[in-house]
Amino acid sequence: MSNTSGQQGLFAGETDEDTMAASKPKKGGASRPRKGKAINAETMAKRQREISVSEFFTKNRHLLGFDSPRKALLTAVKEAVDNSLDACEEARILPDLKVTIERIGDNDKQFRMIVEDNGPGIVKAQVPHVFGRLLYGSKFHRLRQSRGQQGIGISAAGMYGQLTTGQPVQVRSKAGRRAIPMKYTIRIDTAKNRPEAKDEPIEWDTKQGTEVTIPMEGEYRRGQRSIQEFLKLMAVSNPHVNLTFTEPDGTVTEYVRNTKDLPKEVEEIKPHPHGVELGILLKMIQESENRTVSAFLQQDFSRVGPGVAKEICEKAGVKPTTNPRRLDTKTVQKIKDAIETTKIMSPPLTCIAPIGEELIIAGLKKEVEADFYQAASRKPVVYRGRPFAVEVGIAYGRPGDTLEMTETGKIQQKSVKKNEELLMGNADEPVRLIRFANRVPLVFQQAACAITKAVVGTNWKNYGLQQPRGALPIGPMVIFVHIASVWVPFTSESKEAIAGYDEIMDELKRALMECGRKLGTHVRKGKKLANEFKKRNYITMYIPHVVDALKEILELEDKEVERATGKLTDVLERSRKL
Amino acid sequence: MSNTSGQQGLFAGETDEDTMAASKPKKGGASRPRKGKAINAETMAKRQREISVSEFFTKNRHLLGFDSPRKALLTAVKEAVDNSLDACEEARILPDLKVTIERIGDNDKQFRMIVEDNGPGIVKAQVPHVFGRLLYGSKFHRLRQSRGQQGIGISAAGMYGQLTTGQPVQVRSKAGRRAIPMKYTIRIDTAKNRPEAKDEPIEWDTKQGTEVTIPMEGEYRRGQRSIQEFLKLMAVSNPHVNLTFTEPDGTVTEYVRNTKDLPKEVEEIKPHPHGVELGILLKMIQESENRTVSAFLQQDFSRVGPGVAKEICEKAGVKPTTNPRRLDTKTVQKIKDAIETTKIMSPPLTCIAPIGEELIIAGLKKEVEADFYQAASRKPVVYRGRPFAVEVGIAYGRPGDTLEMTETGKIQQKSVKKNEELLMGNADEPVRLIRFANRVPLVFQQAACAITKAVVGTNWKNYGLQQPRGALPIGPMVIFVHIASVWVPFTSESKEAIAGYDEIMDELKRALMECGRKLGTHVRKGKKLANEFKKRNYITMYIPHVVDALKEILELEDKEVERATGKLTDVLERSRKL
Repeated sequence: MSNTSGQQGLFAGETDEDTMAASKPKKGGASRPRKGKAINAETMAKRQREISVSEFFTKNRHLLGFDSPRKALLTAVKEAVDNSLDACEEARILPDLKVTIERIGDNDKQFRMIVEDNGPGIVKAQVPHVFGRLLYGSKFHRLRQSRGQQGIGISAAGMYGQLTTGQPVQVRSKAGRRAIPMKYTIRIDTAKNRPEAKDEPIEWDTKQGTEVTIPMEGEYRRGQRSIQEFLKLMAVSNPHVNLTFTEPDGTVTEYVRNTKDLPKEVEEIKPHPHGVELGILLKMIQESENRTVSAFLQQDFSRVGPGVAKEICEKAGVKPTTNPRRLDTKTVQKIKDAIETTKIMSPPLTCIAPIGEELIIAGLKKEVEADFYQAASRKPVVYRGRPFAVEVGIAYGRPGDTLEMTETGKIQQKSVKKNEELLMGNADEPVRLIRFANRVPLVFQQAACAITKAVVGTNWKNYGLQQPRGALPIGPMVIFVHIASVWVPFTSESKEAIAGYDEIMDELKRALMECGRKLGTHVRKGKKLANEFKKRNYITMYIPHVVDALKEILELEDKEVERATGKLTDVLERSRKL
Repeated sequence: MSNTSGQQGLFAGETDEDTMAASKPKKGGASRPRKGKAINAETMAKRQREISVSEFFTKNRHLLGFDSPRKALLTAVKEAVDNSLDACEEARILPDLKVTIERIGDNDKQFRMIVEDNGPGIVKAQVPHVFGRLLYGSKFHRLRQSRGQQGIGISAAGMYGQLTTGQPVQVRSKAGRRAIPMKYTIRIDTAKNRPEAKDEPIEWDTKQGTEVTIPMEGEYRRGQRSIQEFLKLMAVSNPHVNLTFTEPDGTVTEYVRNTKDLPKEVEEIKPHPHGVELGILLKMIQESENRTVSAFLQQDFSRVGPGVAKEICEKAGVKPTTNPRRLDTKTVQKIKDAIETTKIMSPPLTCIAPIGEELIIAGLKKEVEADFYQAASRKPVVYRGRPFAVEVGIAYGRPGDTLEMTETGKIQQKSVKKNEELLMGNADEPVRLIRFANRVPLVFQQAACAITKAVVGTNWKNYGLQQPRGALPIGPMVIFVHIASVWVPFTSESKEAIAGYDEIMDELKRALMECGRKLGTHVRKGKKLANEFKKRNYITMYIPHVVDALKEILELEDKEVERATGKLTDVLERSRKL
């Protein structure tokens, strides 16, 4: 196989049946004769070029979530908010955010996105790289839960802004109480993937924090998959955040925090030996400062003590005191095999911070009015050495559509409270699925997401819901699903959908079934009540006719008729209650 | 907003209500006290690091299609075959490929993938970069249809092989008839994204060509989404290819070419002015060798002649003789706006090579036995300045399940020919959708693909098929969809699904409807026949009883009974035929 390049001398007189056949015009005319310019390997080789990562993503910008002006604006907000929340949490600051979208001049295709936080700020030397360079950051190489993880997001937003408006990114940052506030103007050199930045000290009346301003082509709309919806969902999964959102028309929405508890502080962990790949192991050995295999195993991995290290070495037939850099690939393979057959404690779970059942239900109650709430927060487990936890929440039943039994045994329609922005659909529509990864709402690519596949793959008929083949169940329900992990495997750099690794699919299904079973009990009770209600309605409908007939036959008086009606109703209702 | 870094002095005695609150233990226990190690911006800044593109894709290898051992093997084959076919076509050679998968030793988790072609070969200086460096190649910067386009694929396969086996990639190449065959051993330094290669001249009994060998962890299976299936579909969309496939158990499958016509030769085009973005325009000006705006417009774009260039300059208020590098961003924006309002001829379509209706139907007939075939090859159109064409083919009806009317007007079941490897499902199953981009079969991520969304979004009930809400239609049918473009916008680097740009969705729907309408006529005819058949069966069933009754009433003889039966059948059949 050949990647590119041409060929030598092939059209200079040599004969080859196939190629000659190909170079002659044919019936059907698909192949055409060459036009005289000989393609040869040498000239072709000159077309080979390096592709900078910025060039790549400029052309493939949909991979980053910038495929349409409308989506671009939301993606930029998401990346900026993610970074702000990560920074605040790492510095243990309760986040106060301001998100502003404003028109540039009277242009309704160009907008300015401004996100300001009260976070720790960023030191001068780092600002240009953080905002003006793709694949740069602190989160990629660390094993701990964070919203950002790739070192692409915010600089991609800046790149898109520059691409569509020609304007640079503006940043203001005050890195601590006593630091001098600075203002930065940052351009990205896409051919080199490097920032070109200017900075100057400024007056800025803030304690500390960072503010990023990105001018970009955009389209501003409300409704489904809007910035508004994203922030609303963000508030569900981040009850500790205060956020003020200002729309282009000046409308201000405040999201007020529900709790002053920050998410549990997460700790960085070392890789777990189970699931480590040969290539990674070889690379870790190259980069390790440890000079014995035993020390390497104990200090470069989590959960390896002297006993486990000894066991691994014995199984692999390697002396624990050997310098690991002296090992050849075959011996390292033996160590890898030994690791796989050695029992090692699960990785520490301090690196992830699930939301918890209580806060999931509180979040759902705040945004969805329903009859029934349920949540399941699974214990963390591991895929490819990386801990993750799945959490599911369910809100079921539009209060206005359902029935309740009063204390005296009467069944009645519940009083209807109208919720204008109800996330829930109607009883005959597919359920509403809301997806989250590391507390970030996922609003696009629902069909491609492992979460959706797990919901579709769960048999909701078991829990009393209708479900068309290969589709979401039908019913007045919101399903909340959250995955917390040190590394969420997204299906693309835009972080919109989660890849379906087996371990993740399994956990998703278990969590859904856990909630589903409890839902089933509730739904069946509701259905029984509804049937009851229908039957009693029939009774009520026919009793007057029965009594009328009795009246005629027995020649009753009006008083007696009344009493007969009452008694009949009583008897029938009592019999139905059994 | 802040990307990362800590804060200064915040925990050294200063008071802030929110942060102090956060740093105290709480009821509910979500927040925990700090552990004494102060996080400050300076120390945090040290965690910021560059991420090499190889490191990024090692961690995110599912983006490249290497998420499971089974898929990895197929992805590697796909990338190697893509490159071979691209190289052969560019050099106008009819491709002869050999694909071999073999076990490494008696290990059933490690395989060797070998792909050999009769292509033009690759010159020595390029081999290490082509196979040992991500984001390197000749196809990224050119506007012409090719299978590869990113400069990632084959080096990613090598990287995965190295990661899972520790072994390097082996390449043999003979770059032309008179060139010396060379052998290369290539490793990738993932931290730097650069190759480490050794080479040596070898004896190799081949005219010219390239062979790549990648050892890797894998899982070999047949059936759905297997290498076998991929190659079978590849043969449908590439009828000019000869390919020999050897499986690990030694089974050999030959795919023989249907045609000696190579696909139409494609030409590189310059970007079309319509849809060019400001940032790209600014960059093109920086990189241009042209020193007047007029020359820049005419020579760096396609379809701009002196007249169009003059019109653009006039509208933008720019002198045609101005040096483009002297223009400020605002003026360039004016030129961009002027371009958008100027009528410019569509881009030349010589850069893409659709398959054509005839060959689509021939390909389908070869692999799918059906009653009805139909194809629609749409005229190329443009998205973001990039030409593309959509083609749809349909094969409908399992011959064994359907009825036909004989010349004498009889309806009978068609004779059943069993096709063991029929791509088509049963009548009560969803249709089988086969997707192609630039002649490459797409076998994964069907749900995320624009093609699937277009098929699901088409109302097949109009064409006589059942279709559950939001799902593929039901029926014995194969839908073939092909997109040919100078740049296919894939949803991830693994090139498994196409992003749903509006222009592409529109064309897909049009092509599907074009085929659908003709299908509708056929399906309705079939349904009428089936009804007829059912009714006639009833007639045949009841006639003996009717005649029995007549016999008794009229006291007929056996001979007369026979005649009566014949006549009755005749009359009824004739009446039904009307």
